Amino acid sequence: MSKPVVGIIMGSQSDLRIMKEAAEVLDELGVVYELTVVSAHRTPLRMVEYATDARSRGLQVIIAGAGGAAHLPGMVASLTSLPVIGVPVKSSNSIDGWDSVLSILQMPSGVPVATVALDGARNAGILAAQIIGASDQTLASRLDEFKKSLQSKVEIAAKNIETKGWKSAL
Amino acid sequence: MSKPVVGIIMGSQSDLRIMKEAAEVLDELGVVYELTVVSAHRTPLRMVEYATDARSRGLQVIIAGAGGAAHLPGMVASLTSLPVIGVPVKSSNSIDGWDSVLSILQMPSGVPVATVALDGARNAGILAAQIIGASDQTLASRLDEFKKSLQSKVEIAAKNIETKGWKSAL
Amino acid sequence: MSKPVVGIIMGSQSDLRIMKEAAEVLDELGVVYELTVVSAHRTPLRMVEYATDARSRGLQVIIAGAGGAAHLPGMVASLTSLPVIGVPVKSSNSIDGWDSVLSILQMPSGVPVATVALDGARNAGILAAQIIGASDQTLASRLDEFKKSLQSKVEIAAKNIETKGWKSAL
Amino acid sequence: MSKPVVGIIMGSQSDLRIMKEAAEVLDELGVVYELTVVSAHRTPLRMVEYATDARSRGLQVIIAGAGGAAHLPGMVASLTSLPVIGVPVKSSNSIDGWDSVLSILQMPSGVPVATVALDGARNAGILAAQIIGASDQTLASRLDEFKKSLQSKVEIAAKNIETKGWKSAL
Amino acid sequence: MSKPVVGIIMGSQSDLRIMKEAAEVLDELGVVYELTVVSAHRTPLRMVEYATDARSRGLQVIIAGAGGAAHLPGMVASLTSLPVIGVPVKSSNSIDGWDSVLSILQMPSGVPVATVALDGARNAGILAAQIIGASDQTLASRLDEFKKSLQSKVEIAAKNIETKGWKSAL
Amino acid sequence: MSKPVVGIIMGSQSDLRIMKEAAEVLDELGVVYELTVVSAHRTPLRMVEYATDARSRGLQVIIAGAGGAAHLPGMVASLTSLPVIGVPVKSSNSIDGWDSVLSILQMPSGVPVATVALDGARNAGILAAQIIGASDQTLASRLDEFKKSLQSKVEIAAKNIETKGWKSAL
Amino acid sequence: MSKPVVGIIMGSQSDLRIMKEAAEVLDELGVVYELTVVSAHRTPLRMVEYATDARSRGLQVIIAGAGGAAHLPGMVASLTSLPVIGVPVKSSNSIDGWDSVLSILQMPSGVPVATVALDGARNAGILAAQIIGASDQTLASRLDEFKKSLQSKVEIAAKNIETKGWKSAL
Amino acid sequence: MSKPVVGIIMGSQSDLRIMKEAAEVLDELGVVYELTVVSAHRTPLRMVEYATDARSRGLQVIIAGAGGAAHLPGMVASLTSLPVIGVPVKSSNSIDGWDSVLSILQMPSGVPVATVALDGARNAGILAAQIIGASDQTLASRLDEFKKSLQSKVEIAAKNIETKGWKSAL
Repeated sequence: MSKPVVGIIMGSQSDLRIMKEAAEVLDELGVVYELTVVSAHRTPLRMVEYATDARSRGLQVIIAGAGGAAHLPGMVASLTSLPVIGVPVKSSNSIDGWDSVLSILQMPSGVPVATVALDGARNAGILAAQIIGASDQTLASRLDEFKKSLQSKVEIAAKNIETKGWKSAL
Repeated sequence: MSKPVVGIIMGSQSDLRIMKEAAEVLDELGVVYELTVVSAHRTPLRMVEYATDARSRGLQVIIAGAGGAAHLPGMVASLTSLPVIGVPVKSSNSIDGWDSVLSILQMPSGVPVATVALDGARNAGILAAQIIGASDQTLASRLDEFKKSLQSKVEIAAKNIETKGWKSAL
Repeated sequence: MSKPVVGIIMGSQSDLRIMKEAAEVLDELGVVYELTVVSAHRTPLRMVEYATDARSRGLQVIIAGAGGAAHLPGMVASLTSLPVIGVPVKSSNSIDGWDSVLSILQMPSGVPVATVALDGARNAGILAAQIIGASDQTLASRLDEFKKSLQSKVEIAAKNIETKGWKSAL
Repeated sequence: MSKPVVGIIMGSQSDLRIMKEAAEVLDELGVVYELTVVSAHRTPLRMVEYATDARSRGLQVIIAGAGGAAHLPGMVASLTSLPVIGVPVKSSNSIDGWDSVLSILQMPSGVPVATVALDGARNAGILAAQIIGASDQTLASRLDEFKKSLQSKVEIAAKNIETKGWKSAL
Repeated sequence: MSKPVVGIIMGSQSDLRIMKEAAEVLDELGVVYELTVVSAHRTPLRMVEYATDARSRGLQVIIAGAGGAAHLPGMVASLTSLPVIGVPVKSSNSIDGWDSVLSILQMPSGVPVATVALDGARNAGILAAQIIGASDQTLASRLDEFKKSLQSKVEIAAKNIETKGWKSAL
Repeated sequence: MSKPVVGIIMGSQSDLRIMKEAAEVLDELGVVYELTVVSAHRTPLRMVEYATDARSRGLQVIIAGAGGAAHLPGMVASLTSLPVIGVPVKSSNSIDGWDSVLSILQMPSGVPVATVALDGARNAGILAAQIIGASDQTLASRLDEFKKSLQSKVEIAAKNIETKGWKSAL
Repeated sequence: MSKPVVGIIMGSQSDLRIMKEAAEVLDELGVVYELTVVSAHRTPLRMVEYATDARSRGLQVIIAGAGGAAHLPGMVASLTSLPVIGVPVKSSNSIDGWDSVLSILQMPSGVPVATVALDGARNAGILAAQIIGASDQTLASRLDEFKKSLQSKVEIAAKNIETKGWKSAL
Repeated sequence: MSKPVVGIIMGSQSDLRIMKEAAEVLDELGVVYELTVVSAHRTPLRMVEYATDARSRGLQVIIAGAGGAAHLPGMVASLTSLPVIGVPVKSSNSIDGWDSVLSILQMPSGVPVATVALDGARNAGILAAQIIGASDQTLASRLDEFKKSLQSKVEIAAKNIETKGWKSAL
C-alpha cells in the first residue's frame, strides 16, 4: 500500500464520530490517508511536531477538525506550508457551532485555512481529493465520476416523484 | 509567459477592491493567474461555461469572491471538480458579512468550497499557491520563504518594542 | 385537468417533509402545480433547463426550497423573469437556519427572491396563489374565503376560552 | 395615465431614501404605482383602511417598507389577500437590520409576506413587476430585456478587465 | 368579583402553555384579569377593537404575548395609551426566539412596549401587578411580601447546601 | 413644584446623551422626575440605597439605562417592588448593543424589567407616563393627545407626498 | 481541615448541576473551597454581604455562576477586589447561552470578571487553582501534573487509533 | 527595578493601540510587567518558547490579546499552568468582534482562559493585579483604593448633575 498523502487529525477522540466521514470518502475515492488525534490544547508540542514534519513525511494535505475555540486547524496552518482544511465540529461545549466556525475561518492574513461547513468532514475529504486531483489526472477522473453519481441520485429521486407523485416519496 | 493555473473570478467589479489582493499575492509568489468578472445571478450561463471549461483550459484552482447571498463559489464548485476557494466579501448590501460567509461556507455534502475569512482575498491567493505547491516543490520552497518573511516581520517588531519600549511603537 | 401554473422544486428529497405543505395548500386553494427535485449543486444543468423553460411551459410562479447554503431559489431567479418564492429550509446541516435564510434573502440588486419564513412552505403556497390571484378574480375570492376561515378559527378559540375559562383550553 | 397597480408604502418619511428605489425601477419598467406614508404604529387605522381598500382601488401588489420592529408589511398582509412585498429597512434605530428582517420575514402560517433583502427596495420594485408580469406578456418581455441589460453590463466590465488588465478597473 | 384591570391576550391558543403563567401569578397576587386570544394577523379588526376599548372597559394594563414576527404587542400599543407588556414567545416557527424578541422590543419612538424575557409570561404578570401597585398601597405591600418569599426560598436552599453539603442538593 | 414621581438613573454620565430623551419627553408630558448617575459596578452601595428608598421617597417608576453588561436595571428591580424600565444603551464598549439588550431583558422569573428598544430612552419616558397614567385620568388624556400628535405628523407627511410627489420629499 | 480559599457561588440551586464541576476539580487539585447559593436578584443584600466579607474571611478567589441576565459575577466583582471568575450557565430560560455569556463578559472598564466558556465550571475551578498557584509552588506543581495527565490521555487515545485503526475507536 | 510579574503579549503590533491600556493600568497600580509581540500564527515556535519559560522567568500572570481567529491566549494557556488572561481585540479583519470573543472564551475543558470584554485591555491589567493581589496584601490595599477612586468619580458626577441639573452635564 502506498504512503498516506492526506493526514486527518482531530482535537479529541470525541470528534471521530464526525471526522470519520472524511476517512470514508477518501476510501471511496482511493486516496491513502492517515488518521490520529492531535490536541492543540492538551498536546501542543505533539501538534508542533506533527505539522512541522508533515510535508517531509509525504503528506500533501492536512484535514484538521475541532470544536469550540478550535485552534488546531489554524495552528497547524501556522506550522506548515501544506494546504490545511479545517472542519468546524459542533461539539457538546460549542455555542451552536458559531465558536467552531469563527475560530477556524477567521484566520489572519498570511495563514489561510480552507474551511468547510459545520460538521462538514465528508466535504473536507472530497476537497482534499480535489486538491490532489488538481495535478493528478487519474484522481480528477474519479472525482468527475463521483460528481456524476451525485447527479444520478437526484435525477432518480426526481423521476420517481414526477412519475409516482410526491406522496409516494414521503 | 506560461498559461494561468489559477482563475480569479468575482460576482461584481465592485468586489475588485478586495479580490485584487489575491492577484497581488499570486504575483509575489510567481503563480500565473487570470482574473475576470463572472456573475452567478446576472450572467449564469457565462458562469456555467467558465466553470465547465476551467480544467480543460489548464486551471488547477479557482478563486471566487462574492458578497451578500454569495452563490458564485458554490455554483462554480457544482460545475467543476477543481478545488474552488470562496472569498466572502463584505459588500455594501451585506448584513455585516454574515450572509456572505454563510452562503459560501455552508455547502451541502458532496460539493465543498474552501472558504477563507471575510474579505480574505490575500489568504485565498496564498491557499491557491499552497494547493499547487502540494505537488510542486519549487513553489513549496517559495511558500516556506514567504512564511519565514512573515515571521521576521513579527520578530523585528517585537525586538523594537522590547528594546525601545512600547511607547516608541505607537 | 389544466396545466400547472406553479412549479414547486426543492434541492433534496429530504426537503419534501417541509415543502409538501406548499403542495397541500395549493390543493386546498385549487391551484394546479407540479413538484420535483432540482438540485443547484448536484444537478446544475437540470436547474438551468428547468428555470429557462419555466415560463414557456406555462408556469406563472416558481416555489424553490433549500437548506444550508441555499442557492436554488436565487439561481432559478437569475434564469427566469417569473416571480420566484424562496423557502429557507432548516435542514440537518444548517446552523439554526440562519444560513438558509440569509443565502436566499440577501439577493443582489436586479434579481429578487420573494423569501418567506424559515420552513414556511405553507406560506409559500399561499403567496403563489396570491400572486396568481392578483389578476384572477376567482382565485382572489377563494383567498378571501381562506382568510375568513383563519379568522373564524381564532374567534372560536377565543369564544371558548372566554366562556369556559382558560384552564379548559390547555 | 392609467391607474396605479402597485402601491408603495413606508412606515416613515425617513424610509423614502431607501424606498424611492422601488419607485424608480417601476418607472424604468413602465409600471404605474402610487406612493405614500402609512405608519402601522402611528396611524394604525389609516393602515387598516389603506390595506382593506387596496384591491378594490385596482392595486395588484403592495410594497411595504419599514425598519426596527417592522410591523407594516405583515399587518397589511393580514388585511388584504393581495401579495405584499416587505422591504426591511436598516433604519437608525435598528440593531444592524436584524430586527427589520426578522419582524418582516418570520410571519406565521396563513399570512405570507414576500420579503426581499435588507434595504432591497429596488428588488421589491422588480418583484412587483414580475408578479404583474406573471400574467402580462408585454411586461414579461420588458423584464426579459431588463435581465439582458444586467447581463450586458457584467459582460462589458469583464471584457474590459480581460483586455486591459485588472489594474485599469480599480 | 371586581372587574378585570389586566387584559392578557395572545396571538394563538398555542401560546397559552406559556401565557398561563401570567394568569397564575396574577391569581397569586390577587389581581383580577381577563384572558383571551386576539391574533394581529388573523383577526386584525378584533385586535383594533380590543385595544381601542381597553381603557374604557376598565383595564389598566395589557399583557400581549406572541411568537415569530410578533406584531400583537406593538400593534396594541399603537391603539391605546395604556401600558402594554410584551411577552416574546419561543413558538415552534421561531428562529430560536430572536424574531419574537426583536419584533416586540425594537418599537419605534413614540410607541413603547414594556418587553420581558423570552417566554417570560410570569414576569409579565408580576410587572403588571407592579404597575398597578405603583399607585395602590395594598398591592404594593403584597408585592413586597412576594419579594420576601423569593428571598426565603433562596436562603433555605443556601442553608441546606451549607449545612448538608452540596452533594445532598443534586 | 411637586415631588418627583419618576426616577431616571444611568450607569455612567456618558449615557446622558441617550437618557436625556427620557427627561425631555417627561417634561413635554408634564411628569415630574429626578435624574442622577448611579453605577451598579462602581457605586453598588449607592445603588442599593437608591433602590431601597425609592418608593418611600415618592417615586412610582424608575427608569434605568446602562450599556455593555448592563446590570443596573435588573439590580434595581431586585431591590424594589416599583416597576423598573430598562433602557439598553449602545455604549462604545458594547458589541453592537446585543450585550446591553440581553443583560437587561433576560431577567429571571420573579424580577421583571420593562425593557424598551436599544437607545430607546424617549420610549422609556413615555412608558413611565403610561404607567402613571394607568390610574391618572389627566395624564391619560395628555397621552391620548400625544398619540394624536404622532398621527398628525404622519398624515401631514403623507398628504405632502401624495399631492406634491415623492421627489419633493427627499 | 484548612479554611476555604475559593468561594463557589451560583444564582440558583438549579445551576448546581453545572457548578459542581468547579467543586470536583478543586477537590482533585486539593484546593479547599466553600459552596453556596447567592442570588443577585432574589437575595441582593446577602450578595453584598458575601462579597464584601469575602477577603476578610480568607477567600482568595470567587467563582460565580449564573444564567440568563447573569448579574451575580459582575456585581460580586463590584463589591470586592478579589479576582472573580464568571461562569455563564446555559439555563433553561437562556437564549442559547448568549445572554449569560454577554452579561458576564462585557463588564465596563474598572471592574473585570474573568469569564470562562459557557457551562465551563470545570475550567473555572482550574483557573481558580492557577490563580492561587501563581504564588504557591506546591499547587503549581500539582497543576503541571494535571496538565501532563490531560496530555497522556490524548496520547493514549492517539496511540490506540494509530495501531488499531480508527474503526476500533468508534 | 524588580523583575516583571506580568507578561503582556499580543498577536500583532497593530493590537498595541488596545493592549497598551493593560500596561497603563499596571503602571498606575505599581505592578511590574514586560510587553512584547508574539504571534501564534506567524511565530508559533516563539510562542511555545515564551509560554513554556514564563513561570521560570518569574511571571505570575500572562495577558494575551488577539483579534479574529484569536489563538494566542488559548495556545499560551495550553503551554503553561500560569493563569492566562485573554483580551479579544476588535481588529479590522474581525466580524464585529464575535470571532475574537468566541475563539478566546470557548476553551475546552482542562485549559481555561480568563476572558475579559472585547477590547477590555484595561480590565485585563486590573484582573492581573487582582490575581497577584489575592496573596499580596499591599497590592490588595492599592486595589481597594483604586475601587474607591472609581466610586468617587461617579459620586462627583452625580452630585454635579443633582445640584446643577442634567443640562449642565451634556
